[in-house]
Amino acid sequence: MSGDLHNLNIAIIGATGKVGEVTRDLLAKRGHPADKIIAVASARSVGKRLPYLGGALTVVAMSDAVLKAADVAFISATNEISTELAPQFAANGALAIDDSSVFRLDPTVPLVVPEVNGADVADHKGIIAIPNCTVSPLVMVLAPLRKLGNFDKVTMATYQAVSGAGNLATEEMFAQMRVLAQSPADASDQIKAENFPVQIANNIIPQVGDFGDNGYSSEEMKADGETRKIMHNDKLRVGATCVRVPVEISHSADVVIEFDAPVAPEDARAELQKFAGVQVVDDADLAALTPINTAGKDAVFVGRIRRDLVHTNALRMWFVCDNLLKGAALNALQIVDEVMRRKPIQPK
Amino acid sequence: MSGDLHNLNIAIIGATGKVGEVTRDLLAKRGHPADKIIAVASARSVGKRLPYLGGALTVVAMSDAVLKAADVAFISATNEISTELAPQFAANGALAIDDSSVFRLDPTVPLVVPEVNGADVADHKGIIAIPNCTVSPLVMVLAPLRKLGNFDKVTMATYQAVSGAGNLATEEMFAQMRVLAQSPADASDQIKAENFPVQIANNIIPQVGDFGDNGYSSEEMKADGETRKIMHNDKLRVGATCVRVPVEISHSADVVIEFDAPVAPEDARAELQKFAGVQVVDDADLAALTPINTAGKDAVFVGRIRRDLVHTNALRMWFVCDNLLKGAALNALQIVDEVMRRKPIQPK
Repeated sequence: MSGDLHNLNIAIIGATGKVGEVTRDLLAKRGHPADKIIAVASARSVGKRLPYLGGALTVVAMSDAVLKAADVAFISATNEISTELAPQFAANGALAIDDSSVFRLDPTVPLVVPEVNGADVADHKGIIAIPNCTVSPLVMVLAPLRKLGNFDKVTMATYQAVSGAGNLATEEMFAQMRVLAQSPADASDQIKAENFPVQIANNIIPQVGDFGDNGYSSEEMKADGETRKIMHNDKLRVGATCVRVPVEISHSADVVIEFDAPVAPEDARAELQKFAGVQVVDDADLAALTPINTAGKDAVFVGRIRRDLVHTNALRMWFVCDNLLKGAALNALQIVDEVMRRKPIQPK
Repeated sequence: MSGDLHNLNIAIIGATGKVGEVTRDLLAKRGHPADKIIAVASARSVGKRLPYLGGALTVVAMSDAVLKAADVAFISATNEISTELAPQFAANGALAIDDSSVFRLDPTVPLVVPEVNGADVADHKGIIAIPNCTVSPLVMVLAPLRKLGNFDKVTMATYQAVSGAGNLATEEMFAQMRVLAQSPADASDQIKAENFPVQIANNIIPQVGDFGDNGYSSEEMKADGETRKIMHNDKLRVGATCVRVPVEISHSADVVIEFDAPVAPEDARAELQKFAGVQVVDDADLAALTPINTAGKDAVFVGRIRRDLVHTNALRMWFVCDNLLKGAALNALQIVDEVMRRKPIQPK
């Protein structure tokens, strides 16, 4: 399976970023040849050497040569960079796997989580989008539950890690922790907050992205629109409150799913356990259902599956997922695997 | 108002604990005489001197002398201690304000948040219970909204501070932060977790209290039962997921309130702003709606008031509240104020 990609030239746009770093790790695990990886980043990182399989990848700037060489491009940078580069890679015959929000709701671009809607890759025209990092685990949880009944109403509250906001945000949290660890009592004057509207260490922030006119943040509206598209269910609404918590890696969420008729928690548990990429955790093993113990793991971990107290037909549960793996880089790579399974990409 | 208590002997049971400490602070602010405060704690703290108004309170052990002297007793220790002592104080003619869960749902004991159901204090028989630290702010938010319509369905996800688990839990979090601040990469072996099932720094834990047969934790079931009792609404159901986050002080929560008919967010905002003890925060001032900026403050802070995306008649909002103040010690003291307003307690 993994061998399939070995002949392809893979460009990583945003190679020095959090997702770029995990993409490199995943390719290294598969033994992808270093000379078939093009690490692209911004001007200030050009020439930097990134450790790779005992050697190193040298960061280059974006160029026509990269466009011409790449068979696949993983783009995880900014919306502006994706807007510019994804169509250029597509026009040059490469497959762009895009991590920005620019193309996700574009009807001509598949938005894919392979276990859920892998068949959608067939329609691609050179760009396939990966969902927001809370949406990928959410649809992994929702998809197997469709066998148990119809549902159009999902309510979610998230607990999102700072790595979702990038390297600088993560460094900022640990820097704030260092100040707090020295003098928790009166540290506030020494705390610097540049990546979030207020300090994130010893705090939580009920805002991820910008607020729109309806009072929802951009992150919250992504949960609604992207989930609907991936699930192929126009009636589905996802109401979310997205919150940043002082955790380095792994997003968690509380989810209430309202079915048309009652569903037994045991049945949900069984369907979830059968679904590839999902792992069910028992209450007795609760520590396994926390960010610290899911970071670095591929699965979406689900637990606390119980009947909702409020809505007769609803189930309530909790999921945790490494936001950089299934939430981003792993899902992107799995999309390429899915494309290869269906109609292998030929090296240029 | 505050002068009313000056002649009363006030016993603080659990004087060295988190809530006991804040109770002392509140009494000091009111200038309550040191010789009218009896600081009671466990054997290992007896003789300890607790700073108070430029002098100190000396910790004593529980005794018949305390029972005889006290006019009011604030009990914030363990369920076992409350079970034993609250009835004894009542039998000795004192008013016990109890912070345990033992008496909260007892039909002979009022469970009170003065702004919401202050009149319930009238029925007391020597014991009045204060609600769980997430329930007090929740009912402060729900109560003013009753003017806008009926609601029986409330869905909540909490983000609870470690101080709710006591001094040792708080110290543990900062100790873990110190380890992480030194070596975030490979600190896991050095992290000690004794007060929670797993480390809390750089993590979140979707469990507060023990799990029952229905899959809900004791903390989650408190949200349901206590809210129903305080709101005098037998039909009301509160479905909660209670989660511990690495924050020292202030509990936050995401809340969805399903009304029988549509309610405008502006109207909710207006009613909330009018309600004593509630402060509405604008999206533009989001930092004010976080734990770090609400710790040490009396109000329940509410914001992000918006129409639910999922349920036509529902509103969704966010609240934050110092769990030691309105969540515990302040509410307890306000209950005594409420009793004094109605039928002053006579000193023994």
